[in-house]
Amino acid sequence: MFTVEILSIGNELLIGKIANTNAQYLARRIVELGGKVIRIVVVGDDLDEIASAVRESLQRKPSFIITTGGLGPTFDDVTLAGIGRALGLEIVLNEEALKMVKEKYEALSKERGTILELTPARVKMAMLPKNAEPIRNPVGTAPAVKLKTDSTVIYALPGVPNEMKAIFEEYIAPILAEISDRVFLERYLFIEGLPESSLAPILEEAMATYPHIYVKSHPRMEEGRSHIELHITIYSESKDKAESILSAATEYLKKTIEEKGGIISER
Amino acid sequence: MFTVEILSIGNELLIGKIANTNAQYLARRIVELGGKVIRIVVVGDDLDEIASAVRESLQRKPSFIITTGGLGPTFDDVTLAGIGRALGLEIVLNEEALKMVKEKYEALSKERGTILELTPARVKMAMLPKNAEPIRNPVGTAPAVKLKTDSTVIYALPGVPNEMKAIFEEYIAPILAEISDRVFLERYLFIEGLPESSLAPILEEAMATYPHIYVKSHPRMEEGRSHIELHITIYSESKDKAESILSAATEYLKKTIEEKGGIISER
Repeated sequence: MFTVEILSIGNELLIGKIANTNAQYLARRIVELGGKVIRIVVVGDDLDEIASAVRESLQRKPSFIITTGGLGPTFDDVTLAGIGRALGLEIVLNEEALKMVKEKYEALSKERGTILELTPARVKMAMLPKNAEPIRNPVGTAPAVKLKTDSTVIYALPGVPNEMKAIFEEYIAPILAEISDRVFLERYLFIEGLPESSLAPILEEAMATYPHIYVKSHPRMEEGRSHIELHITIYSESKDKAESILSAATEYLKKTIEEKGGIISER
Repeated sequence: MFTVEILSIGNELLIGKIANTNAQYLARRIVELGGKVIRIVVVGDDLDEIASAVRESLQRKPSFIITTGGLGPTFDDVTLAGIGRALGLEIVLNEEALKMVKEKYEALSKERGTILELTPARVKMAMLPKNAEPIRNPVGTAPAVKLKTDSTVIYALPGVPNEMKAIFEEYIAPILAEISDRVFLERYLFIEGLPESSLAPILEEAMATYPHIYVKSHPRMEEGRSHIELHITIYSESKDKAESILSAATEYLKKTIEEKGGIISER
């Protein structure tokens, strides 16, 4: 099973300007593709913070590190410099990346009817760690970047959500699907009439009986009524196997919870 | 200026089930209170992962670590055990916390007309690292926890958003406001007609001219029209000083951007 760490880069996340929906999107897609996200880290637009976060992540040897943000033309877009520092790699002009950037600004110049020169800010987007490969950005101007280390493949994606998604779906998701050896399935149960603390021993027993499943309970309040949401998940080698274990475990949980006085609705 | 690291605990975040809105809420409030969030880390409901994340965070010596999640009655609520392991502290029954939990279940028993005993799952919520202080949870059952180390105060909050917010606002925000020595202010400018790469040198110059401000540009697409959102922020010792610098810097930016052909709207 492949593992992923997500490194989200941007001061806007650290000041609570936005929720980290990029990480949520990536995490969800990685799980759907059969992978496991081990950690999500958010740091600001700061060279040292990025470098230390990448270094710490590499020590845990995930199959992949996916970074978002900090690839643009402004002075504080320092993700690639941070990755370079973490790996002791020089930052050099990548000719292929420069070609991608050039083409973007030529198209943009035509569109706007004004010449957009290759200023230092624009060339900066083609400055990559040595040995890195640029990935074409079908939406925006800054190429994404792939960089292999001994244990981990690093993908650096832009922070603009539609650019991040486009590159992930077109380029990375097919690779993850190809190497994936797991299927992820999930089911929900909604329970009224039992507090979470009464469910706790039931969940533990269910997981002992069906060791492949994982059950997590979430207390919820909706329209003034409280209930517990049970989220039952499984990773398995095949869809058939996953479905059969998940169904059996769900039936077991329903039966046991109803015996204890819980009222169940499946939505 | 006080610094904070946020540690968000819960598998639901790592599988992309939800966005990390707890971290966003806390980050926003901490900034409003004049503090700085240095890092946000998300780990699953896993003892080793929590312990190692706490240990790494302590090495960076933030003024505060605020954790969310993992305080409940189920077997996978292991935040306090993780913090205990990181600090080498035994987990012991805290009498004050037990009293809080007892009162909650006595009230709940009355409300439901059925006796809810102090089961092991419920007593678990009163098992705290040695020397930790429980904080009353005005909304839910699991007490929050405060624990001092030499360099850092750790607050462990529940993951249920309304419980987390209630405890933060009632108990922690007043403490942060008391020690705060900074005021945070921000302003937005929206720019059309200039790509981000043309703005980049202007922003750099503005920050060199007004070294206390920070300007970040965000490309945006709204109703089919693209524009750049500029977010201008400042931390200062007083509100007056912050406002006067922020106004001067904003005027400077508007003038310079208009000279380069940008069209500005303030919203």
